[in-house]
Amino acid sequence: MRPLKLSKAFTFIEPGPVILITTHDGGKNNIMTLSWIMVMDFTPRFAITTGAWNYSFKALKKTRECVIAIPTVDLLDTVVGIGTCSGADTDKFARFKLTAVSGIVVKAPLIRECLANIECKVVEFISRHDIVVLEGVAAHVDSSRKENRTLHAVGDGTFVVDGRKFSRRKQMASKLPEGV
Amino acid sequence: MRPLKLSKAFTFIEPGPVILITTHDGGKNNIMTLSWIMVMDFTPRFAITTGAWNYSFKALKKTRECVIAIPTVDLLDTVVGIGTCSGADTDKFARFKLTAVSGIVVKAPLIRECLANIECKVVEFISRHDIVVLEGVAAHVDSSRKENRTLHAVGDGTFVVDGRKFSRRKQMASKLPEGV
Repeated sequence: MRPLKLSKAFTFIEPGPVILITTHDGGKNNIMTLSWIMVMDFTPRFAITTGAWNYSFKALKKTRECVIAIPTVDLLDTVVGIGTCSGADTDKFARFKLTAVSGIVVKAPLIRECLANIECKVVEFISRHDIVVLEGVAAHVDSSRKENRTLHAVGDGTFVVDGRKFSRRKQMASKLPEGV
Repeated sequence: MRPLKLSKAFTFIEPGPVILITTHDGGKNNIMTLSWIMVMDFTPRFAITTGAWNYSFKALKKTRECVIAIPTVDLLDTVVGIGTCSGADTDKFARFKLTAVSGIVVKAPLIRECLANIECKVVEFISRHDIVVLEGVAAHVDSSRKENRTLHAVGDGTFVVDGRKFSRRKQMASKLPEGV
């Protein structure tokens, strides 16, 4: 993995892929699968919807840190597996043969097998809506990999993989933020 | 378009497509393009990030209603066009040859040319974060169309279209909400 400009980090979230979120509670690492995320700003800032029903939430609440990792299609069964077991009784890095790599700002680990990793700090817990506002503080991308297609969870147990790409950069020039 | 069960409406947002949002300010209809949206609950409930920099925001604030419309790949240039002009000086339904259809609950129009339309009411404006919490109150789907592939905005002027689909319904059975 190499450093990714923070100004480009939102481009890994904006297309709406299913993501993994890692936490470190002081003792153990954990991972959860999540689709409920949106970009809030290019800085980058994100919102996720989560709460006490996710075991990871306790660590997120305690440490106010996490890493957003972007899996690709080859990790489909890992993504589903992580989303259907609990960190309460499972070491998910061991069970799914994933490699925890140290980040540069937060203690939650990066996942080496993912396309990109965004280190985040919690800006605010909006408890009445179960929204957590995150600020990206460092980002990393694996530019050596051939498989770059991300996964989109439909929510009914099916997933859609990235297909064809189209550019409309010229038509959108006036609307694009700097540095992307 | 035929009625879509509200319990299934979130499955059109969860995969992270670029969406259109219509408003009706009492006089005129308007449309904006948006990628900054997430599912918050199956009921369905959604969050979007928007604010005064979008002309539509004034109508949203005033009426507390909107429609989320889901375009497909054949509407790529319409989506880009809607996102790069303003309702302040443009009748976007006329300019992009879209058909406004009356909804059953809200006054903001459905877009006939879209795959699905979700009528929404505002639950809360979280102003300090430019988040608007929406509740879906009625939903519609065009089940007759052949083109069902949605678009995902990358944020750098490029778009990714839905590709292959995979089912993991069996593995995820314990996690799926009722009625999807």
